[in-house]
Amino acid sequence: MMKRITLFLWVLASVCMAKAEDGSQLWLRYQPVNKAKVTGPDCLAAEELRTYYQGETATLTLDPKMTDDAYRISGSTITAKNEQGLLYGAYALLRGESGYSAPYWKLRILNHWDNPNGTVERGFAGKSIFLNPDPERIRMYARANASVGINGTVLNNVNAKPEALSTESLQKTKAIADQLRPYGIRVYLSINFASPIKVGGLETADPLDAKVVRWWKEKVKEIYRLIPDFGGFLVKANSEGEPGPQDFGRTHADGANMLARVLKPHKGIVMWRAFVYAPQSPDRANQAYLEFMPLDGQFADNVIIQIKNGPIDFQPREPYSPLFTAMQKTQMMVEFQLTQEYLGAANHLVYLAPMWQEFFSYVKPGSLKAMAGVANIGDDTNWCGHHFAQANWYAFGRTAWNPALKPEEIADEWIRQTFSNDERLLSPVRQIMQESREACVKYMMPLGIHHIFAGTHHYGPEPWYAPKGLRADWTPPYYHKADSIGMGFDRTLTGTANVRQYPEALCRLYNDINTCPENLITWFHHVPWDHKMKSGRTFWDELCHQYDDGVHEARRFLTVWDAMQPYVDAQRFSEVQRKLRIQARDAEWWRDACLLYFQTFSHRPIPQDMEHPVHNLDEMMQFSIPISMYENPEHGYTK
Amino acid sequence: MMKRITLFLWVLASVCMAKAEDGSQLWLRYQPVNKAKVTGPDCLAAEELRTYYQGETATLTLDPKMTDDAYRISGSTITAKNEQGLLYGAYALLRGESGYSAPYWKLRILNHWDNPNGTVERGFAGKSIFLNPDPERIRMYARANASVGINGTVLNNVNAKPEALSTESLQKTKAIADQLRPYGIRVYLSINFASPIKVGGLETADPLDAKVVRWWKEKVKEIYRLIPDFGGFLVKANSEGEPGPQDFGRTHADGANMLARVLKPHKGIVMWRAFVYAPQSPDRANQAYLEFMPLDGQFADNVIIQIKNGPIDFQPREPYSPLFTAMQKTQMMVEFQLTQEYLGAANHLVYLAPMWQEFFSYVKPGSLKAMAGVANIGDDTNWCGHHFAQANWYAFGRTAWNPALKPEEIADEWIRQTFSNDERLLSPVRQIMQESREACVKYMMPLGIHHIFAGTHHYGPEPWYAPKGLRADWTPPYYHKADSIGMGFDRTLTGTANVRQYPEALCRLYNDINTCPENLITWFHHVPWDHKMKSGRTFWDELCHQYDDGVHEARRFLTVWDAMQPYVDAQRFSEVQRKLRIQARDAEWWRDACLLYFQTFSHRPIPQDMEHPVHNLDEMMQFSIPISMYENPEHGYTK
Repeated sequence: MMKRITLFLWVLASVCMAKAEDGSQLWLRYQPVNKAKVTGPDCLAAEELRTYYQGETATLTLDPKMTDDAYRISGSTITAKNEQGLLYGAYALLRGESGYSAPYWKLRILNHWDNPNGTVERGFAGKSIFLNPDPERIRMYARANASVGINGTVLNNVNAKPEALSTESLQKTKAIADQLRPYGIRVYLSINFASPIKVGGLETADPLDAKVVRWWKEKVKEIYRLIPDFGGFLVKANSEGEPGPQDFGRTHADGANMLARVLKPHKGIVMWRAFVYAPQSPDRANQAYLEFMPLDGQFADNVIIQIKNGPIDFQPREPYSPLFTAMQKTQMMVEFQLTQEYLGAANHLVYLAPMWQEFFSYVKPGSLKAMAGVANIGDDTNWCGHHFAQANWYAFGRTAWNPALKPEEIADEWIRQTFSNDERLLSPVRQIMQESREACVKYMMPLGIHHIFAGTHHYGPEPWYAPKGLRADWTPPYYHKADSIGMGFDRTLTGTANVRQYPEALCRLYNDINTCPENLITWFHHVPWDHKMKSGRTFWDELCHQYDDGVHEARRFLTVWDAMQPYVDAQRFSEVQRKLRIQARDAEWWRDACLLYFQTFSHRPIPQDMEHPVHNLDEMMQFSIPISMYENPEHGYTK
Repeated sequence: MMKRITLFLWVLASVCMAKAEDGSQLWLRYQPVNKAKVTGPDCLAAEELRTYYQGETATLTLDPKMTDDAYRISGSTITAKNEQGLLYGAYALLRGESGYSAPYWKLRILNHWDNPNGTVERGFAGKSIFLNPDPERIRMYARANASVGINGTVLNNVNAKPEALSTESLQKTKAIADQLRPYGIRVYLSINFASPIKVGGLETADPLDAKVVRWWKEKVKEIYRLIPDFGGFLVKANSEGEPGPQDFGRTHADGANMLARVLKPHKGIVMWRAFVYAPQSPDRANQAYLEFMPLDGQFADNVIIQIKNGPIDFQPREPYSPLFTAMQKTQMMVEFQLTQEYLGAANHLVYLAPMWQEFFSYVKPGSLKAMAGVANIGDDTNWCGHHFAQANWYAFGRTAWNPALKPEEIADEWIRQTFSNDERLLSPVRQIMQESREACVKYMMPLGIHHIFAGTHHYGPEPWYAPKGLRADWTPPYYHKADSIGMGFDRTLTGTANVRQYPEALCRLYNDINTCPENLITWFHHVPWDHKMKSGRTFWDELCHQYDDGVHEARRFLTVWDAMQPYVDAQRFSEVQRKLRIQARDAEWWRDACLLYFQTFSHRPIPQDMEHPVHNLDEMMQFSIPISMYENPEHGYTK
């Protein structure tokens, strides 16, 4: 009886405590206490501590011998080289850290794919926050970034409009830069390589043309007059229709180095993207390597080649891009995608840190100069569309600060700050997060399957999508190559030899179907339907079970979340629940569409010991979601 | 190895054998062999045997001492009183019966709810087959009925248009009667009680008015001139807006007896429906009893009171209508509904024989004069919309012939004739059929819940449906009465006292919440959410689990059916599969809608050890299927 009363009182208390929240405060949900007496330099760090620190006193001290951005916390004393370090230390103190900490990389940078008209490419959280910047919102953005150590931001889409460099646009960029500067965040811009023509009115954008160079010099001077600490350029060139040096018979190195020389006097850098895939190659996965390897060693010292984590394009699972281990004399940085272009948009709970950890188990952080993340931020009240998508923003900053942090540690930090310290929530929610990416792989694309998404928006499954005349490598059948024998892309030495781009040991491992990790087996092999898997099942049966397991995982997340109701405010509880329901339904859609479609090749039955598809292939094939690449779909399959 | 080859050859053989079929042949799928030499009278029985019997010879003999319709099969010899008995015997021989068989009831009758414009009320298999009757189709209909012993058919809707008695319409009825007569099927008509006014131009339809009686006499004479073996009238009077004797201050007995007297010289009968529920009663379930019990003993000897199996209206589970055990001096017949108005229309596989068996465990067949079934037949190629709905037509005839037949025996007969004798199909499919009705109860309305269907078409769940101003007993909340304490309709002695309409022992059983069968618990009780169930669970948890079990059952049916592919022709396999998929999705919709809606009253969590709802209550509440009561929906919930 006593127990029941206690439970009752406790539920009552939880209900009263759990006031509606909208996620706008991200993980910075400290209540202002205005209590602490802070000694030391009067800076932003002091202000944050005065407002939010729960202790009686805090001390800020400067130590010029310390590393840039590093901090040491001892009790309530923070020591750093300068105010920036103190600010990082202040946020660390507020979240309960102590001891010494220094960032692994100097450059921890967000890439916004925001367009001048306010749309966000692959943005699932509303419009650009930079379109009509709200000062309070921008300040919150800056605080959030600083709190996790992010110190750079590219404000506009890599598919850059030339207008980004117009004087009018640069004035706007200056205003944002001024707001971000106090938080130690530098701004960068994506540039259109044809800007000298489009903005400057020249007849060419040839990087070796003197007039072109002069134009860039003047433009860069103009930028630095407005933004003295401007970070530099991000460039997508000769990729997916964007202009580039090859249009003028020059190489990526010619283009990047010209810009680098112009930026160098101002300490600016060039981040030159390696996301290229000319359609002439029989294997898109080979292409970036073929284009960039010959240039290894030719790039200026303020050029960093920005390479997506995998050789294709932000798939739920890819092997790492072989450029990372192949290039020896080139500065490189990795580009992760926080916005879930291929991972259920802002509808699916997919915690990405485990994916990045997997990447770093192949690519040593020491081989990279920096880490970039394509932002998942928009003007939605909760910033990221899905409350749990905030965790990917958080984890990106923390991983860029310290890639040795374990994903579960980061999740733990984030949940404590964002939801609750209550162990009854902490442990199950952390577990969901940890399992979420693998679950997504299972219900979308297990066993190395990739790029079988809807043609136009990359949301649901369309493994059959192949309109006549479309570039083959923009269609799923190019990737899955399902036929009566099996499915998968033969990238072995007797196939496209993509395996050869990897170091010898990995090449051997991947090349042999019997040693290739099963979670990449159809990435590297055309796997016969009856191939015996480690589980003892045939490949077909294993494929079926993987999909079905994914569905059950997604449903389980919902069940776990439902039990969190007592520990979460009503608004976020129900908003997350609604998303998890979409995810569970979508998982079923993925399973049914993929299995029924692949079954038309395998001619094998769905195993009896699993749940069978409940949707009809022909109806799924006729179904489409009428959204652009700038929107989050409200629903998945609806038939 | 040998085994594998055998398996392979066998699969090959099955594939070759399995030609596309469309279900138009129902269970009469014998191939014409034109082999048997048939001796005896040259009749329809002889013709059927000559065409389809596999033996070399067959003998038909007459024995005038035998009971009407009965037959005896000994080897390939059939003996019967007359040609009709021989025909029944011929179909029995074709399906492999032997020995003696006689029908339990003299009258085994289908009720078509077909309208003059060709729509079929609660018809889910297309338009009326009687609108523009195709002779081949009508012959098939007659053969199918005769093959299972059905010997009567009411051609038009109980909500009868007066035109049914117009001379033009009677000419059409005659044409159909002529086609059915050789198969021993008499036709009947539903009549509109106001016909003397609407057709005859009189000022009244008062059954005690001499002019009215005269009009009926003349009309009946006209009918019998056209159709000498016309069966009689089916009457829905003073029910749901239909006219009746009460409109003229007379009783049901006055009305029925007047018609009975007019029909008597022609050997016609009156089937007078007891489906009445005046809205003044606080409990619709009480109403028919209150209206009819005072008339017990007042009906003429050619009147049969036709009573729906349950006191409300063809719900997935109801107790039996208490009139059956209460009326002592009145001829009664039961009306079952084959068309699945409340059981998933032509989309759900629900085999109804187990429901009828349940009914006959309470109502002794000997207390009834006849059995009627509301037909599930339309002009769809496969007759019933769902291939498995044919089984309900089949089972209705067989049960009306012999109510002691076990549902599984009937299913076995039907599967063998309709699909295959192969034990690998027979056993699992029979099991699905046997379990299907209980599964439907679970995912739609477990534990005695009733009438929480969509307001306009009775397809999906709308437990919340309650438009302002609508008769309360046409809205689900009237039936489920969910509130903060619990849910269910208190029909105990301290409630509406409906239990008192049952015999003493049952009254006591139902009246006590601790002895009331749990599958009817909310039918008779307002059950507290925390009421302890036999499972040890609370009522709320049990409710949740019942719904979820139903979902899993529906999914399992699909899995079982998928394994039948080798044994079924491609067309029927995929058509049934498609329906089973709808059923599985609908089951999820039912579970989610009902649990989430009832949860707004129970304020209790969905148990952690089950799958959680994946749809959102507000979206389900806004959703509607734009169909009339004459259509089968193509999909269930689509959001």
